Amino acid sequence: MKLTLSEPKFLKDSVSIISDLVTEASFKITSDAIELIAMDPANVAMVIFKLLSSSFVEYNVKEEVLLSINMNDFKQVLRRAKANDSVTLEIDDNKFKITFKSNTTRTFYLPMIEVEDKQQKVPDLKFKSTITTTSDILNEAVEDADIISESVTFIVENKELTLIAAGDLSKAHINIKADNDTKIVCDEEKVKSKFSIEYLKKMIQGSKISNKVMLQLGNDYPLKIEYMVLNKVQLAFILAPRVDND
Amino acid sequence: MKLTLSEPKFLKDSVSIISDLVTEASFKITSDAIELIAMDPANVAMVIFKLLSSSFVEYNVKEEVLLSINMNDFKQVLRRAKANDSVTLEIDDNKFKITFKSNTTRTFYLPMIEVEDKQQKVPDLKFKSTITTTSDILNEAVEDADIISESVTFIVENKELTLIAAGDLSKAHINIKADNDTKIVCDEEKVKSKFSIEYLKKMIQGSKISNKVMLQLGNDYPLKIEYMVLNKVQLAFILAPRVDND
Amino acid sequence: MKLTLSEPKFLKDSVSIISDLVTEASFKITSDAIELIAMDPANVAMVIFKLLSSSFVEYNVKEEVLLSINMNDFKQVLRRAKANDSVTLEIDDNKFKITFKSNTTRTFYLPMIEVEDKQQKVPDLKFKSTITTTSDILNEAVEDADIISESVTFIVENKELTLIAAGDLSKAHINIKADNDTKIVCDEEKVKSKFSIEYLKKMIQGSKISNKVMLQLGNDYPLKIEYMVLNKVQLAFILAPRVDND
Repeated sequence: MKLTLSEPKFLKDSVSIISDLVTEASFKITSDAIELIAMDPANVAMVIFKLLSSSFVEYNVKEEVLLSINMNDFKQVLRRAKANDSVTLEIDDNKFKITFKSNTTRTFYLPMIEVEDKQQKVPDLKFKSTITTTSDILNEAVEDADIISESVTFIVENKELTLIAAGDLSKAHINIKADNDTKIVCDEEKVKSKFSIEYLKKMIQGSKISNKVMLQLGNDYPLKIEYMVLNKVQLAFILAPRVDND
Repeated sequence: MKLTLSEPKFLKDSVSIISDLVTEASFKITSDAIELIAMDPANVAMVIFKLLSSSFVEYNVKEEVLLSINMNDFKQVLRRAKANDSVTLEIDDNKFKITFKSNTTRTFYLPMIEVEDKQQKVPDLKFKSTITTTSDILNEAVEDADIISESVTFIVENKELTLIAAGDLSKAHINIKADNDTKIVCDEEKVKSKFSIEYLKKMIQGSKISNKVMLQLGNDYPLKIEYMVLNKVQLAFILAPRVDND
Repeated sequence: MKLTLSEPKFLKDSVSIISDLVTEASFKITSDAIELIAMDPANVAMVIFKLLSSSFVEYNVKEEVLLSINMNDFKQVLRRAKANDSVTLEIDDNKFKITFKSNTTRTFYLPMIEVEDKQQKVPDLKFKSTITTTSDILNEAVEDADIISESVTFIVENKELTLIAAGDLSKAHINIKADNDTKIVCDEEKVKSKFSIEYLKKMIQGSKISNKVMLQLGNDYPLKIEYMVLNKVQLAFILAPRVDND
């Protein structure tokens, strides 16, 4: 296989975000796309990443390849890519070969590793509510909640999304109404689920990919957060809810 | 009470600076202003803060309120305010309620606490010298002294302000002459006092409020540092001198 | 002696870089220049610094002076210089006196110390290859190598400079071809030497002085890295090779 990107941004940003959640993972490289579906070690979060062949200036994949690597090593290498470097991905002598080209040619070789559970599947989820908003609004809301507590409750009700974080004595309510920036669809009168802020903070880094985000929710049900650039890249996360007795 | 600021800057910056000196404090909210007078826990520094009602777009205070809170919690909340957020302060169900409004509505509730010595009074001081200069000049002088020693001596003599810091083997002299930027008035031939640089570094953060600063000095006497924006905000500090045997 | 620079940049940047390699050193101040030749404490690296009298607006040296000081103290003082400060260097009462002048006058006094081996000599080296390139290209190459290993091999062959860093399982090749930016001269078919990346990272800070750099190399031989601004300043480093058994 030989794949060349004319600019490294989407791959670089995505790998950087993913490496905060999963340390080792497998990319499946098909004739259509580079894909990754992986669970974090605590089994709380799933990452779904797809970089479409249409993002590449050269995309030559003869047969499907499963490329298992240490995500942190890959992130370290991609951080060395400058904005105007072209990036070529190959497999050479059982090593993963990454080449940056501008006025110099810089080649990195990373070991391919053995990963268990290579073939994760995206679970079939039925959400009750779908919200599209700007990445900024979601980022601010999660960061607001972060100063108060370690978890935050998402409530969709009356065309409004409300995030509630409660500490021992302090509390935060973030209220986001449907408007030009924010579309809220909900099949039920009220939908409510609670999530870890630590995980959310890693996922909202997806705002580097797109300034739009889609949220999908249910009642005490997983949250799906999705960043997408049409015909280029998709980065999505599924986060298990916190179900507690309060 | 209900108080609304159209932009959070003065409150946000002031609370951030004050929280470096005092951890818990009481705001007195009168029909004219929000005021705070507090000593640092070591009783070396006093903070005097006043945000005038004319800074607010809505200022509704029926009776004087004493609002005691943890300054660090308040700082954390105010840091979440964006430049174009309006900020509303209320008391709701015995909690301090802070609301930020822009495209979203974000509400924080902080506990009100018990504070000893709520009613600090500004001491009646008679200074011998008054200097007005730019915040930059004072900031640079304090930071210069900081690389040499933990204390710095302020001397006013011959229409000049000199800061002297002496280490074991090193020394710094910062000489500031009266000119267009700097006015120096002194009732005595020479005035001299020594202060802690650690405290000064916290106080000169007041340069975020105004690019002008007023210093008032005496002989082995407290220093008053004052930042002010006319009809808006006043942030002043009184720092006890270091009197040593040299 | 009395020496005045109209702007502190070259002295400030050079002393900052040198202080990362040597803690105490002697400047020789002659009628032509301020010079420093010093070894790092581990005897692996030599620094050669020369700030020519033509850089100064005032250069008054009656007899040669040997000025031994703590480089870190000197760096701390020079960091306080603002871009538009004039800098005057003097010896006053057996102290090293540094004065910054703009709207204020700020004077620092540092102790002069005793240094062993004051009079280092630059060794007489015969290099096989000389390369001139941009500081950016060298910086990127060293930083690329840094993510893989603690040492890097420089190879000059076929009008190309290649840097190779090898980790346990990972590897990086940085290939720099002769072109408009890069001139490569080599007296032998192939030249190869290995160096510590930790030291190289300190030396490439010389890019603050000039965006051009000259490299001189041999076989298992020291590397000389030189940054120069004509008629102003020269900052060069000699780095001993790592000779290992592979």
